[in-house]
Amino acid sequence: MTLIKQLTDQEEFVGFYLLKELEVKQTNNTPAKDYMDIVLCDASGQLPAKYWDASPTDKETFFPMGLVKIRGLVQTYRERLQIKIMKIRPAAEDDGVTLTDFIRSAPIRPIDLVYTIKQTIASIADLEIRAIVSFCVDKVEEKLMHYPAAKMHHHAYFAGLAYHMVRMLELGDFLCKQRPFLNADFLKAGILLHDIAKPEEMIAQLGIVSDYSVQGKLVGHISMASNWITEAAVRLDYGLDSPKVLGLQHLVLSHHNLGEWGSPVQPQMAEAIALHHIDALDAKLQMVEDALDSTPDTEEWTQQIRGIENKAIYRTKL
Amino acid sequence: MTLIKQLTDQEEFVGFYLLKELEVKQTNNTPAKDYMDIVLCDASGQLPAKYWDASPTDKETFFPMGLVKIRGLVQTYRERLQIKIMKIRPAAEDDGVTLTDFIRSAPIRPIDLVYTIKQTIASIADLEIRAIVSFCVDKVEEKLMHYPAAKMHHHAYFAGLAYHMVRMLELGDFLCKQRPFLNADFLKAGILLHDIAKPEEMIAQLGIVSDYSVQGKLVGHISMASNWITEAAVRLDYGLDSPKVLGLQHLVLSHHNLGEWGSPVQPQMAEAIALHHIDALDAKLQMVEDALDSTPDTEEWTQQIRGIENKAIYRTKL
Amino acid sequence: MTLIKQLTDQEEFVGFYLLKELEVKQTNNTPAKDYMDIVLCDASGQLPAKYWDASPTDKETFFPMGLVKIRGLVQTYRERLQIKIMKIRPAAEDDGVTLTDFIRSAPIRPIDLVYTIKQTIASIADLEIRAIVSFCVDKVEEKLMHYPAAKMHHHAYFAGLAYHMVRMLELGDFLCKQRPFLNADFLKAGILLHDIAKPEEMIAQLGIVSDYSVQGKLVGHISMASNWITEAAVRLDYGLDSPKVLGLQHLVLSHHNLGEWGSPVQPQMAEAIALHHIDALDAKLQMVEDALDSTPDTEEWTQQIRGIENKAIYRTKL
Amino acid sequence: MTLIKQLTDQEEFVGFYLLKELEVKQTNNTPAKDYMDIVLCDASGQLPAKYWDASPTDKETFFPMGLVKIRGLVQTYRERLQIKIMKIRPAAEDDGVTLTDFIRSAPIRPIDLVYTIKQTIASIADLEIRAIVSFCVDKVEEKLMHYPAAKMHHHAYFAGLAYHMVRMLELGDFLCKQRPFLNADFLKAGILLHDIAKPEEMIAQLGIVSDYSVQGKLVGHISMASNWITEAAVRLDYGLDSPKVLGLQHLVLSHHNLGEWGSPVQPQMAEAIALHHIDALDAKLQMVEDALDSTPDTEEWTQQIRGIENKAIYRTKL
Amino acid sequence: MTLIKQLTDQEEFVGFYLLKELEVKQTNNTPAKDYMDIVLCDASGQLPAKYWDASPTDKETFFPMGLVKIRGLVQTYRERLQIKIMKIRPAAEDDGVTLTDFIRSAPIRPIDLVYTIKQTIASIADLEIRAIVSFCVDKVEEKLMHYPAAKMHHHAYFAGLAYHMVRMLELGDFLCKQRPFLNADFLKAGILLHDIAKPEEMIAQLGIVSDYSVQGKLVGHISMASNWITEAAVRLDYGLDSPKVLGLQHLVLSHHNLGEWGSPVQPQMAEAIALHHIDALDAKLQMVEDALDSTPDTEEWTQQIRGIENKAIYRTKL
Amino acid sequence: MTLIKQLTDQEEFVGFYLLKELEVKQTNNTPAKDYMDIVLCDASGQLPAKYWDASPTDKETFFPMGLVKIRGLVQTYRERLQIKIMKIRPAAEDDGVTLTDFIRSAPIRPIDLVYTIKQTIASIADLEIRAIVSFCVDKVEEKLMHYPAAKMHHHAYFAGLAYHMVRMLELGDFLCKQRPFLNADFLKAGILLHDIAKPEEMIAQLGIVSDYSVQGKLVGHISMASNWITEAAVRLDYGLDSPKVLGLQHLVLSHHNLGEWGSPVQPQMAEAIALHHIDALDAKLQMVEDALDSTPDTEEWTQQIRGIENKAIYRTKL
Repeated sequence: MTLIKQLTDQEEFVGFYLLKELEVKQTNNTPAKDYMDIVLCDASGQLPAKYWDASPTDKETFFPMGLVKIRGLVQTYRERLQIKIMKIRPAAEDDGVTLTDFIRSAPIRPIDLVYTIKQTIASIADLEIRAIVSFCVDKVEEKLMHYPAAKMHHHAYFAGLAYHMVRMLELGDFLCKQRPFLNADFLKAGILLHDIAKPEEMIAQLGIVSDYSVQGKLVGHISMASNWITEAAVRLDYGLDSPKVLGLQHLVLSHHNLGEWGSPVQPQMAEAIALHHIDALDAKLQMVEDALDSTPDTEEWTQQIRGIENKAIYRTKL
Repeated sequence: MTLIKQLTDQEEFVGFYLLKELEVKQTNNTPAKDYMDIVLCDASGQLPAKYWDASPTDKETFFPMGLVKIRGLVQTYRERLQIKIMKIRPAAEDDGVTLTDFIRSAPIRPIDLVYTIKQTIASIADLEIRAIVSFCVDKVEEKLMHYPAAKMHHHAYFAGLAYHMVRMLELGDFLCKQRPFLNADFLKAGILLHDIAKPEEMIAQLGIVSDYSVQGKLVGHISMASNWITEAAVRLDYGLDSPKVLGLQHLVLSHHNLGEWGSPVQPQMAEAIALHHIDALDAKLQMVEDALDSTPDTEEWTQQIRGIENKAIYRTKL
Repeated sequence: MTLIKQLTDQEEFVGFYLLKELEVKQTNNTPAKDYMDIVLCDASGQLPAKYWDASPTDKETFFPMGLVKIRGLVQTYRERLQIKIMKIRPAAEDDGVTLTDFIRSAPIRPIDLVYTIKQTIASIADLEIRAIVSFCVDKVEEKLMHYPAAKMHHHAYFAGLAYHMVRMLELGDFLCKQRPFLNADFLKAGILLHDIAKPEEMIAQLGIVSDYSVQGKLVGHISMASNWITEAAVRLDYGLDSPKVLGLQHLVLSHHNLGEWGSPVQPQMAEAIALHHIDALDAKLQMVEDALDSTPDTEEWTQQIRGIENKAIYRTKL
Repeated sequence: MTLIKQLTDQEEFVGFYLLKELEVKQTNNTPAKDYMDIVLCDASGQLPAKYWDASPTDKETFFPMGLVKIRGLVQTYRERLQIKIMKIRPAAEDDGVTLTDFIRSAPIRPIDLVYTIKQTIASIADLEIRAIVSFCVDKVEEKLMHYPAAKMHHHAYFAGLAYHMVRMLELGDFLCKQRPFLNADFLKAGILLHDIAKPEEMIAQLGIVSDYSVQGKLVGHISMASNWITEAAVRLDYGLDSPKVLGLQHLVLSHHNLGEWGSPVQPQMAEAIALHHIDALDAKLQMVEDALDSTPDTEEWTQQIRGIENKAIYRTKL
Repeated sequence: MTLIKQLTDQEEFVGFYLLKELEVKQTNNTPAKDYMDIVLCDASGQLPAKYWDASPTDKETFFPMGLVKIRGLVQTYRERLQIKIMKIRPAAEDDGVTLTDFIRSAPIRPIDLVYTIKQTIASIADLEIRAIVSFCVDKVEEKLMHYPAAKMHHHAYFAGLAYHMVRMLELGDFLCKQRPFLNADFLKAGILLHDIAKPEEMIAQLGIVSDYSVQGKLVGHISMASNWITEAAVRLDYGLDSPKVLGLQHLVLSHHNLGEWGSPVQPQMAEAIALHHIDALDAKLQMVEDALDSTPDTEEWTQQIRGIENKAIYRTKL
Repeated sequence: MTLIKQLTDQEEFVGFYLLKELEVKQTNNTPAKDYMDIVLCDASGQLPAKYWDASPTDKETFFPMGLVKIRGLVQTYRERLQIKIMKIRPAAEDDGVTLTDFIRSAPIRPIDLVYTIKQTIASIADLEIRAIVSFCVDKVEEKLMHYPAAKMHHHAYFAGLAYHMVRMLELGDFLCKQRPFLNADFLKAGILLHDIAKPEEMIAQLGIVSDYSVQGKLVGHISMASNWITEAAVRLDYGLDSPKVLGLQHLVLSHHNLGEWGSPVQPQMAEAIALHHIDALDAKLQMVEDALDSTPDTEEWTQQIRGIENKAIYRTKL
């Protein structure tokens, strides 16, 4: 079975894939005919596809996020590869294929990521900080097993959010050793809480975000996390003005650094400065790594990356 | 007794005034001599003053925010009036002068402003919204009697915040009648809550802000108000995701309209759009009215006003 | 007859509608076939439509802004409704349908709007201001009966400009009562003149702007209105430097507030500050009200609105 | 007599100079003493000066813009030269000094500049354009003999505005020859009219601007010139919508290129594009030439120049 | 043979043209059919074209940048002209047509442009500057015969870069006469070197840029030119810190004026200020002239021009 | 001997300090008297000082960057501490004080920093990259022993540049381990070269920058480093277009990320993205650490830091 990323122009192939997107459209013919405009994917990447001969039965058979077996032909359309589907059927139980094999995932198992997160919480020395972090993480623990970190920007895949948190924790750990004046409890807490409300801000399935929630649009994950810290303090009976509560809220509220990037206050604690830069460094490098990974080795340049000032990245050669 | 605003160049005068600011400095003479660099004010305005012959006793007698009796001479320094203090003594009890007579105040009595605010809360039909608004206003009710709305920008005087709220309520009332699709409960609540955390964001005395609080700097009044709504919901046992809680938080969070002006989300409810514009309209017109009021009638132009794109305002003539 | 706004997917219907836009295009078939790409509208809204079987006769029968009777089928294309026209004929005289019934209009009759405008002019106490305003309004009086206030931004419908003026006058009236230091003559005049040259800046028919005039592009409605005030002063024999002429020009020139929004000078009179904010408040709230009106009640969110920072508006729920 | 520009540190000198600015201030001594804070200038440049022993008589003897004879000592204060005035008296009639010898002027005689301007008007082939230009230039002809082009930015000296116009006409002449598709009449007219209202926008004496006029602040020279063109058309009985009137207004209104630089419309005629760039090129090069001229030859770098992105200019060496 | 620019709607015509772009696409029919999506051009302009009946042989016969003979029909599609190709064959040798007749070119012969450039180099008095300029120009001399100055922005045609240089030299020559304080050697050198690395930054054929080179993307023509000056100095044994080397590098590095336009330093020499404005003036006027030239005389407005703030240009009428 | 940082108001003290800045000024008295306006520093910080009784001999005795023994009194002026010097004499040889004891330095010995840099160069596997890096570092090796990294922004002290490089190398090392797709040779080289031309861009003594060099202003350290790489390639006989030369130039040119921050190209290699963020992270955290270090422990907030969006930093409390 050929991986999406390995398909080449004019190749005819057979294999199982995921219908990531599917829309029934009509041709301009008279009479107009139905066809399916599809995005096919597997763990290696995705390609647009057309199924020109969609029957009325087909329209009731195929749905987004379903697994299918396909015979297809690779064509070039507007300088990009596109698949013409010649035959298609739903995957059956005895085909032995599993949904999660076909989606892009973090390179570490979700269960291990969440374990690391739990261990880190346990390592926070200050009891008040530890309790508040624990309260907030518990709210979304189940979703941490699979939620992406963003809709498209970075870590946009299965368990991408937890993966982002864990890599940031490694960086934070290094920095606390390099610069002992940084408070490790606050920095760990900031990393764990900064995007903790994202699973309630976005609506996602299998690591793919379909929309933002009403709360996500009206309040936004930054203020939601701040509200959760308030809730934690009230329920755990900590003073709302305690330096720890204020410190945690400050870390969350300021981590986008500037007002035009969504932060109502700017970083004013050493750990808040560190948090913003760790977040930026990890997100940008992951975008670059993911873009290089999903670019065929024969290509010198990746696609343009929106988060990298919309620049394409040149494959370093030595 | 001559009002500050009425003093003219070379005039010699005697009267009671408030020492709004006072700093002991030293001349460049050898040996250097102490003098007092002062800002004198009354309810009509303020002027810089110098007291050149400050004795050691004087330094222990006079403090900022104290009332004094002064014999002075008005001089011109760098095209601006300045007072040379010839004689000065603290006001005594039997002088019959009261601190609040010497500070700038809203043109309506604080007690009447707070009464209007209370009446408005009582007029909110929805019980959940009314309870949350009431909870938040109660937190600062005492401070509403005297807090300004800002450090310098607008309504920067005794009870300026409550005055701003009341004028905005009038405008909101008009708009709800002109455009019945607006929800009056949400608009009233938005007006009452949008700046409700300012008394905890700023440290003020007699309507004059001396600094921002630690919480004000690290969290800011916008997120503080959002947190208070969360606290209210937890304590009053409303769901944190109820449309009313989200709506109130949205109103507060979005009222500065843009990220670069401090709002983490942009207005996305009709009442939030209305709230932002009512706030802007009332604040700008008040700045203009106050600037014209404190400009001598003989002047065509006010001082430059920072909140009005740093423009001076021309006195309309007909 | 079903209103456009009430049509639902897969519904088959018959009714009269307006051909707001019509373009003959060709399919990609060989041989290519002509079809008509249409926008159908009535007073409740508009929808795209396709007429696939356009005959040569059809091409000479149907034109934009014509009324037609249609039998159609509602389909979904790219998540939006679209009409497939099955039968179409021009409306005949005895069908009893009138063009103006099918276009979007201000909710107040044009004749009443213009009456209010005239009454307001008559209420201006200062003779010079009244005469200049009258001169400028007379230039476009006939067009005020039907011109929109903008191409797409806000009040983009039949008599939208006059409606915008009248609502602003109500707001201005309220403000002059709330803040008596504002000069009512200048504020009324500013409201009446600020967009008065728009009917000569844009080319519109039935409330729909098709283009900007050459003068509109090269000079723009702000400078055009300033020039009209100059013309009025010359013809009425007022001094070009009189404070009233300068004041009126200042109100018009500054009402967009900032250079990047088209104002060559920034507001520097109290009434100019008020005018800018009244204009913004009325335009924004109308955009929101219109967007909510034209969104089916079942939808939580409106379409994105360009003038509201490109945000969709959430339907307030209580 | 030593020129200001040639004075060196610790030099003692005697000569005639102009009191460009003069303010009586007071020392911090007790009792405070009056002294005069002065800016001395001649045609070569200017320097700050202090006259420490100002007597009451002196205060009634010396005024800004008066000629004086001085004995002074050059000192260094904050790395800049400053003059300590030891003796000072007003210039007498028989001293044989003339005010205009002491002010900075354009390098061409005003009468010759105005002659060139008149000749250029006469060379405009189109009668309507010529008449409108003539009408507007006539309004300020007398002031063209001495007005500067700006308060500080560029050509800020005696007859600077006329000089700027004449140099631009030379450039425009070259460009019309290099690119014959440009219309010479429109380009000449645009150059002559673009800043024509500046003498009414600013209040100046001897080439030195002291303030902006009320009209200058409320309307601005760009809209004033547009209004003058309207007035010309009304009085000369040309249609306000004639392509020539619109073209001239467009040239004037768009010559600052962008809204944030004061132009309500952007250039949309070839001659308007040319006008903007000719204006920029001439203004910037003049700022550089003037800065180099007023910098002692021994200095590698000029002062920072606000109009050149606040950069200092390096003296080219070959 | 009809020029592209002269073709009108519904006209049937026969003639030779250049296939500027050609892509084989597929219709949505079932079975899908191949057709060719083409851009046809000659020296007067270009138009999109469709060839619906492309046979397998056709796909191997026609390529971009090939000359063809066509019988076509002009149609209107989305308000723009488009050609429907009815017959097409490759041009044969004995058709007597030459590629260069069909491409847009500078109005002066390349050989004359390069001659002027060579003469200008010879006229540079300073030996070091002359040698460095000569070294850099020699690197791309052959490409100067045909390279454009940009991909789309301005002078985007055969020998456009050399033409841009020559027109700028004329302007520089005029300015050095008008303002003798400018150093002619530096200004000539700056004009010759400012874009000298563009032929290595872009990949072009027949005046049409297809892409940027790797070096063009990673280093950019501004820094490449600076590096070439360094290389020249090393190879010619001039000190890298000589004022002439620094001056030339400064001219090149600063000619885009601002960081956001690509210049790492801002102009700080008189000749650098002049260079930037000469470059802007020449580029903008050429864009306008070219846009007017390629607009049918019957049109009042050109297409929108990206380099002119995305404005269309109005054809001046007198 | 009391450290500068430990001095408190009204304290009288005796000790050795460095005259970091010294300017002779004059009082406004009549006759004016000379006094010295001084900045005193030691390794712990700095304070302004006044020496009111400067004799003519004093003026020839004391110079900036000289060591002195002082008896002084700490006073408060405008809410800041300031020293009144009562007695002052130059340090003598047998006082046993050394200049370098009084200046702020990196916390690691310069010789160790340079050793680490040398070791890192030796560890670069690729010979061409290693040779080019070595060539460039050799140019400033001696200056690396003491140059700061910036004038004020960050690492503005003795050997600050080498310290910045070494901390960045540690971070780079960590990242290459965390993300093996990064090329360690390029990342090391980028870190070593990114600011390598700063010692020639700035004029510094004892870690204190007094000015920028002519080359620094006209070319800037970013382009200077690019030129050095060119020089290295020419002298070492590597092709100027080799991927390694281009890669190194790209790293240097793009490390400020955006045009408005001085980079003529934006990062387009994975290592260039990493380099920019490592640079930012290290610089910002160092600013914060240094600001906290030089703030008395009793203060909650540091001074405002220009590089941190002009924010003060709150001392984290746990």
